Amino acid sequence: MLEVTSLINLELNGQKVNKKDTITRLRPLVNKNTIALAQVDPIVGDIEYNFNKAKIFIEWANELKLGAIIFPELFLMGYPVFDIIDRFPCIVQKNIEYLEKLAKLTGKTKVLIGFCEFNRFYIGKRYFNSVAVLQDKKIEKIIRKTLLPVYSEFNDARYFQSAEFNPKERIVEIGSLKAGIVICEENWADKDFFDTPVYGFDPVDEIVKTQKPDIIINCSSSPTRAKKEQLLNNMLSFVSKKHSTPIVYVNQVGSVDNITFSGSSRCYDSEGKIIARAKSFEEQFFLFQMPSKTPAKSNINHIFSLPSGLEQSLNEQKAFSLDYEPDLERTYLTIISSIRNYFKKNGFYRAVLGVSGGLDSSVCAVLLSDALGSQNVFAISMPSKITSSESKTDAKRLCENLGVNYLEIPIVDMVNISSSTFSGVFDTVQKKWDKRYKAPLTMDNIQARSRAMILWGVSNEFEGTIPIATSDKSELYMGYATINGDMSGGFAPIADVTKTKLFALARWLNSNRIQKDVIPREIINKRPGAELAIDEKTGKPLLAEDALMPYEFLDEIIWRIENLHQTKEEMLKEWFLYEHKNNITNKQKSEWIDKFYKRVQSALFKWSIMPPSPIVDARSINKTEYNQPITSKLKFY
Amino acid sequence: MLEVTSLINLELNGQKVNKKDTITRLRPLVNKNTIALAQVDPIVGDIEYNFNKAKIFIEWANELKLGAIIFPELFLMGYPVFDIIDRFPCIVQKNIEYLEKLAKLTGKTKVLIGFCEFNRFYIGKRYFNSVAVLQDKKIEKIIRKTLLPVYSEFNDARYFQSAEFNPKERIVEIGSLKAGIVICEENWADKDFFDTPVYGFDPVDEIVKTQKPDIIINCSSSPTRAKKEQLLNNMLSFVSKKHSTPIVYVNQVGSVDNITFSGSSRCYDSEGKIIARAKSFEEQFFLFQMPSKTPAKSNINHIFSLPSGLEQSLNEQKAFSLDYEPDLERTYLTIISSIRNYFKKNGFYRAVLGVSGGLDSSVCAVLLSDALGSQNVFAISMPSKITSSESKTDAKRLCENLGVNYLEIPIVDMVNISSSTFSGVFDTVQKKWDKRYKAPLTMDNIQARSRAMILWGVSNEFEGTIPIATSDKSELYMGYATINGDMSGGFAPIADVTKTKLFALARWLNSNRIQKDVIPREIINKRPGAELAIDEKTGKPLLAEDALMPYEFLDEIIWRIENLHQTKEEMLKEWFLYEHKNNITNKQKSEWIDKFYKRVQSALFKWSIMPPSPIVDARSINKTEYNQPITSKLKFY
Repeated sequence: MLEVTSLINLELNGQKVNKKDTITRLRPLVNKNTIALAQVDPIVGDIEYNFNKAKIFIEWANELKLGAIIFPELFLMGYPVFDIIDRFPCIVQKNIEYLEKLAKLTGKTKVLIGFCEFNRFYIGKRYFNSVAVLQDKKIEKIIRKTLLPVYSEFNDARYFQSAEFNPKERIVEIGSLKAGIVICEENWADKDFFDTPVYGFDPVDEIVKTQKPDIIINCSSSPTRAKKEQLLNNMLSFVSKKHSTPIVYVNQVGSVDNITFSGSSRCYDSEGKIIARAKSFEEQFFLFQMPSKTPAKSNINHIFSLPSGLEQSLNEQKAFSLDYEPDLERTYLTIISSIRNYFKKNGFYRAVLGVSGGLDSSVCAVLLSDALGSQNVFAISMPSKITSSESKTDAKRLCENLGVNYLEIPIVDMVNISSSTFSGVFDTVQKKWDKRYKAPLTMDNIQARSRAMILWGVSNEFEGTIPIATSDKSELYMGYATINGDMSGGFAPIADVTKTKLFALARWLNSNRIQKDVIPREIINKRPGAELAIDEKTGKPLLAEDALMPYEFLDEIIWRIENLHQTKEEMLKEWFLYEHKNNITNKQKSEWIDKFYKRVQSALFKWSIMPPSPIVDARSINKTEYNQPITSKLKFY
Repeated sequence: MLEVTSLINLELNGQKVNKKDTITRLRPLVNKNTIALAQVDPIVGDIEYNFNKAKIFIEWANELKLGAIIFPELFLMGYPVFDIIDRFPCIVQKNIEYLEKLAKLTGKTKVLIGFCEFNRFYIGKRYFNSVAVLQDKKIEKIIRKTLLPVYSEFNDARYFQSAEFNPKERIVEIGSLKAGIVICEENWADKDFFDTPVYGFDPVDEIVKTQKPDIIINCSSSPTRAKKEQLLNNMLSFVSKKHSTPIVYVNQVGSVDNITFSGSSRCYDSEGKIIARAKSFEEQFFLFQMPSKTPAKSNINHIFSLPSGLEQSLNEQKAFSLDYEPDLERTYLTIISSIRNYFKKNGFYRAVLGVSGGLDSSVCAVLLSDALGSQNVFAISMPSKITSSESKTDAKRLCENLGVNYLEIPIVDMVNISSSTFSGVFDTVQKKWDKRYKAPLTMDNIQARSRAMILWGVSNEFEGTIPIATSDKSELYMGYATINGDMSGGFAPIADVTKTKLFALARWLNSNRIQKDVIPREIINKRPGAELAIDEKTGKPLLAEDALMPYEFLDEIIWRIENLHQTKEEMLKEWFLYEHKNNITNKQKSEWIDKFYKRVQSALFKWSIMPPSPIVDARSINKTEYNQPITSKLKFY
């Protein structure tokens, strides 16, 4: 299968491929019960691009005389669409025109492809989320989605009318088999699998009971995130076994802003066993032999392995743990996909970031180097008078190890001029205004903002360059990030990775990349600090954990709120991992939790102006999926 | 009525009021068919605050022995809630506890109050959007919302389960009358009024047909925006007349982040005539005598006038026009409400902004001064070497007129040091990277960013101070705003006001404020320019219209896309207002439209990191209501 995929990818990129030979070699292995899963990566709104990609896939399927080729949900339009289809209905018009063009390309091989359809009925939302069945140069049938998710990153009901459900209309004959078609969410409504189902009815159940299909085909665009892979696997396995009906799951791949799709399209047999799975995080033309009474001459089904650990039952995790290992490869691949797609699809190819010798910027440098190529990363060390010589050395060694471009430029002069300008301003303001802070953050912030000015300067001066915001999730929760400073940039690679997970990721990168130990051990071993201010007690730069609280404790609060929705009262009753190793009083614990809530309240504004960042965790504070009024009093009771 | 309101507002603020006398005087005028509309302003998630406010209103209603007091949708929780109820269910628990406390305060006078209810059924979303009917110390009844909007700023279906609709359960007896209760959106489903109704059924129609109520009561939280007021009036009038049933509409007041509620609660008689209307943009305890067979002794109904022009049929506007007059008072009041609420509810009370002598910053200064008091505004003029002496003079005169604090501080040194630091950086980068721009925006941006650094510095140094982003809507559409520069701030007052409307607003402010002509005529008469760069042709600062296109033309493109969803092709066929006065070739027109699309595409990122800004226009690019993937190819076909 891999070979076909590679050839199609070459053809997509305009290179000549030996298509005829491959077809000749493969044709004896396939028959009318063979289908192709088109695990593809669209661009939202770029109908011509999506059409041209679909065209190449369809031509291969035609020449192989397959039973069908299945594309993901909404592929022709690109997903997620958000509000562009409301404000620019002309794009929808275009996707209809190109659907008709696609139909013209079809012969005996059926094509199932997601598109956005105008709602021609009198009532409701303007569009349907539909799958067209194309064959013999015609649009043979249209299947419209009924269950429309609105939660997390999903907003289907905002744009689409829920279609009346008719199980008979969901049946498509492919080869000698009767396939029942469901669209994404419609496969997620089993009342036995979910304790609290979101919907009152289950399309798969209805189709199986009334139509007795030989196979269920699920056209999806389902994003990846921690814990979901295992849930998906368990759910699809459960449902296929429960109904004694094989399930084919076709998913898209690639990233759009914050959302990443892992692909990992797959097939389960009627006993709930996985019998074929495409690669993850790659486009694939994946061939699958459907089970039928007349067995095929050859077994072409292949199970590619998932990124490490994803088979483990992460969704069973009932307590906070520092063992992030099972999710690190997926985390890494998600962020890499996210960076690559954001840059490439938006016409950028280079990144500039500040390297401080700290953990956040170091991990970002590695991720950017892997995603864009080391030559396309410029790492700038911008020491102030507070920056220690160790930090400078560590930053430089990291960059040398990675082979990224490196430059050191002191910001002392910029900070000094700003400081003296500021003191003039402040003295004048003070004549009119009272309540000047006694220990303001002004000077700390001047440093962070001067650095961001340099990074934005480079991006203004050099083509295709994005400055990088290096804030991590733990610090964003605490608002421990400077507006127009370290939280400013065109992209924020690790904004959904907590600090303790980031330590684990750094170690994982050091062990699992071809080049080992690129991140100097000193960077991983030292305790994090922003190096923006001096701790008066020690005379050394202030450590983050002293300004905030121990990261291990902080990350467990985040985990408990995001995963268990716990209140302060409930958390006080529970035993934190940190408490197993450290003696802390109840008073201390209570104070840390209060501090957390207080800082979150004032961090809400910062979340609202964060640049795009990959959603990685089971829950995030990314705007695409979490929205809280800034103007709200969260007493967290 | 006004008097009662004022007294309640005094009591809310902890001041003594002569309640007993007022009650004695009012009681003969009211009876059991009198109801109070509680036009109130909640804080989202601050259940105690909302409870305490409700308590005072309920006590007045009790002492007046009214038939009922009606609160807006979701008042006890605060609206809009967004995702906090998903992540912090403890807040919902709290609103249930306080609902029970409120019930204890009730006697014969019924209380109808919106709250967030747990969905105790097995299936669906976690919550219901409900109205409780409280009487005689008990929760007598709960009414659950069925029609859940998901469009623009509405996301009900994201959080709430749609309740099964039973018209009988919607009936509440108040005084001698049978009232049918609908919640917000449920009043917006008339199939005769709307050409393309969003919903398949109309709750009002069902209630009227099956229950024959004497009156319909609509508990709402319905935001204000251009054109909506007139639509609301027409719709309520149409529906009450169609069903020959009076309608009472209770709306909340105040602002949450980007969204503002005008209040303007009202009542229509069975012929569709308005018979009572509360003030707009103010909290009100508004008494209304329901029509009944036994006429009341007195007519207490009062119609307060709406902000100017709102009665005009703005929603009938079929073509772009520069006559913004009808909407200017509402625009002004919306922005003022928005600033006041955002500052006050988030613990801020002072604003610092840069004044350039241009239109945007001048209008912002006036709005801030009116919203916060002139003593709480610091206007800083920050000339660079490009800044003209006229600009400095204009800025200073504006501030003197307004009486806001003023300070001039040149940024020449900051810009020089940054420039020289930058050139060192760029020379080094250039050794490794090609494609350095020939005419970069770096120097323009250093100026804007140095200014923002000073403003953020003041906010870091002085308590309760927010820096202001002064970008307007036309320039945001074109991406004509500097990241970490003029588009950076804690609040953006005019981000939803186009430039041509802003000119009209400036003139309106000069004529309609008590103090006339605060904005120097020179500021309104000169052509806008950012004064960040010199036009090589003229040797003078580059004018915005030369860098972009005529504002009048630009604003009409925006208007056509937002209101008519037109494509480029369609716009080319139409006659623009600008073309009536100026000869332009088709080629020029086509180029401007192309330029618009191209710039919008690259402005999408900037929209995503804009600070909160009041939604004013019929459609905006505010994140709360418009969402487009940055990674999308909009060919605008």
